[in-house]
Amino acid sequence: MAGRVSEAVIRRLPGYYRHLCELETAGVTQISSQELGKRMQLTPSQIRQDINCFGGFGRQGYGYRVPELKAHIGDILGLNKAHRVIIIGAGNIGSAVAQYPDFARGGFKTVALFDVSAEKIGVQVGNIPVRGMDELEDFLRTTDVDIAVLATPASCAQETLNRLCDSGIRAVWNFAPVDLRHPEGVAVVNVHLSDSLQILSYKMLHHDNGEPEENA
Amino acid sequence: MAGRVSEAVIRRLPGYYRHLCELETAGVTQISSQELGKRMQLTPSQIRQDINCFGGFGRQGYGYRVPELKAHIGDILGLNKAHRVIIIGAGNIGSAVAQYPDFARGGFKTVALFDVSAEKIGVQVGNIPVRGMDELEDFLRTTDVDIAVLATPASCAQETLNRLCDSGIRAVWNFAPVDLRHPEGVAVVNVHLSDSLQILSYKMLHHDNGEPEENA
Repeated sequence: MAGRVSEAVIRRLPGYYRHLCELETAGVTQISSQELGKRMQLTPSQIRQDINCFGGFGRQGYGYRVPELKAHIGDILGLNKAHRVIIIGAGNIGSAVAQYPDFARGGFKTVALFDVSAEKIGVQVGNIPVRGMDELEDFLRTTDVDIAVLATPASCAQETLNRLCDSGIRAVWNFAPVDLRHPEGVAVVNVHLSDSLQILSYKMLHHDNGEPEENA
Repeated sequence: MAGRVSEAVIRRLPGYYRHLCELETAGVTQISSQELGKRMQLTPSQIRQDINCFGGFGRQGYGYRVPELKAHIGDILGLNKAHRVIIIGAGNIGSAVAQYPDFARGGFKTVALFDVSAEKIGVQVGNIPVRGMDELEDFLRTTDVDIAVLATPASCAQETLNRLCDSGIRAVWNFAPVDLRHPEGVAVVNVHLSDSLQILSYKMLHHDNGEPEENA
């Protein structure tokens, strides 16, 4: 890709990947920007602009080859390699993430859960034992981990993030309802569930259902 | 509010609300656009522009009164009333949502869960019994419900959404990994967890940690 891709395009990439996977499963090998746009609720020109950002696939009048475009977008998203994931916080959210079948299918493998609660330590969540937080640094010293999921209460999220970064973690998926400070070189993506629900409340109140909502 | 507020501003509203709640709890009564911007990782001029969209609070040189601005943004988000919520799908995600303490604190009250699985029907999830999907329409005819959470597999999400809309539901919080078609007048907000995780994978791969990530 030439240059920095805008945040808006990056946010649409997984949607492209998801729709192209569905099309491939349905046996569709070729698709026009019109058809893909209709499916994704985007204009054909938006589709062409987005796809041009990644190197200009497709030919005028022929559209896009589904398997190639899917593979290319998968590469851009880094989905051609497996990711090893740990989850901090074995509460409802952490446990749901650990057991979400789509992640394992997508190459995201949970290798450990951690918690501070004595009742949770040693319990199995979807075949993965919950470890104590005091084991975190040792575990990270001896095990390859790509991504940490933060599913702690807000009150200890920043301190936990600092420990993760100090141990070399460079990607954090944060479910704690707080905006975290993180060092340069660490990628943080937030899933702020309460914020999302409040946006729904806003849209319901103001009858705003014009635009398709962005993803988490 | 005058005119239609942009999607980007709407997406930032819950962040304002969250930070103003934290400030109020910390006993802060007044805050400048500089200080609020620093906290929220936005520029002071962005803060002033956003807040002007909601009617122009604050005075030059004095900043914003925290309790007033918080109450005003809460009103805009519709948080001054309680919302009654049902959850379709009592799997890991649906159960986690049902038991998420922040929602109940924020005025979102889960009144029922529904599932198709015989093993789940009748089970209690956080004190709420799981009902069979065949009870859905009767339940909605006799009970006030504001929001439906869709936590079904992708394969039956569209059909479930159609049933909800036919029964008068006007707000859907969708966790199924699929883009849904919905009638005019129905607000749908998606939490596409796999998409969010893929964005993290992208950012890790491309060392893109420039912008604070949007909420779910």
